[in-house]
Amino acid sequence: MMKTLVLGIAGGTGSGKTTITRRLVQRFGSDISTVSYDSYYRANHDIPFEERANINYDHPDAFDTDLFLQDLRDLKAGKTIQCPVYDFAIHDRLENQTKEIQPARVILVEGILIFASQELCDEMDIKVFVDADADVRIIRRIIRDVRDRGRSLDSVVNQYLTTVKPMHERYVEPSRRRADIIVPEGGHNKVALEMIMERVRAHLEQA
Amino acid sequence: MMKTLVLGIAGGTGSGKTTITRRLVQRFGSDISTVSYDSYYRANHDIPFEERANINYDHPDAFDTDLFLQDLRDLKAGKTIQCPVYDFAIHDRLENQTKEIQPARVILVEGILIFASQELCDEMDIKVFVDADADVRIIRRIIRDVRDRGRSLDSVVNQYLTTVKPMHERYVEPSRRRADIIVPEGGHNKVALEMIMERVRAHLEQA
Repeated sequence: MMKTLVLGIAGGTGSGKTTITRRLVQRFGSDISTVSYDSYYRANHDIPFEERANINYDHPDAFDTDLFLQDLRDLKAGKTIQCPVYDFAIHDRLENQTKEIQPARVILVEGILIFASQELCDEMDIKVFVDADADVRIIRRIIRDVRDRGRSLDSVVNQYLTTVKPMHERYVEPSRRRADIIVPEGGHNKVALEMIMERVRAHLEQA
Repeated sequence: MMKTLVLGIAGGTGSGKTTITRRLVQRFGSDISTVSYDSYYRANHDIPFEERANINYDHPDAFDTDLFLQDLRDLKAGKTIQCPVYDFAIHDRLENQTKEIQPARVILVEGILIFASQELCDEMDIKVFVDADADVRIIRRIIRDVRDRGRSLDSVVNQYLTTVKPMHERYVEPSRRRADIIVPEGGHNKVALEMIMERVRAHLEQA
């Protein structure tokens, strides 16, 4: 039975999680399976669209943590999982679609709030918190959402100030205390990335 | 010519720098040479003892950074150095004594203020900032200085509040921004230590 290394990557919006994740996947290919907490937003079929649009998606309760835990444990046990597919446009999980994720010797778990749950943390071997200043993070979010996703600046700023920022301060920032290492300037930090890669490589060599 | 990896370990008093340093030396033995910034306190032969006792030793100016830089560059160039020996009891560098340090494929540089100098940082390949809460750090310092070194509680607390803490906030804390990774709970953080070790091992294998 193969030994699995579970690497968790958390950090606020715009911190550079996605860049680190992409680099690791580029480097290790099929030796890494990635699971995003974002795919595990709760299914809300029985709630009307208007109400669904007003749910606080930056709060830990917005996630189906039990299902995420189950899937993560299954992956660790060498089982293939059917990861839910979440449609952000309709604020709901798709009913008849899943994404198959194969087990691998390294499982990368990423998401803003993955360190907010102690149970989730207990499943991880290495917990990396990616960090960047709040002003740099909001700049990245604005660029991503306004320029790349076509949202209005008003709506991005409004969502940021009403839920993203307060939930960050309440849940994301304190969850940093559970991290094993903190990586400043996540995606552009070559020295830290190389260190994480060497650790993964060492696991793959012995696994 | 052998390639040298320079690993810098900084962090406030009581953060766990020494523990990490000791573990690395235990693991890699003569493949690592360690240089402590503490050995490079300025020579103050021409200043009377009473005045020397009142120097602010937590300020970057208390260090002979030029000599430290020169020695570090020599080590990187494969030269053996004569590291100064500082006597904390007389607040002065010993005149007729040095400690020979051999070059090695990994040079470990450690000290509270090593990231406060950009020139010093430029010589390092990996900059690790070891972190712990201020209350935990002062507890460790009190235990070390009162119980292990026989100093009075009053003098330890007085020095902490008059120079250690203000200099920490002014120079040590801001220097954290130059770090490549931040290690919470330094000495007891096995996951981070293993990561650093894998990075060192990878260098030694290819060097």
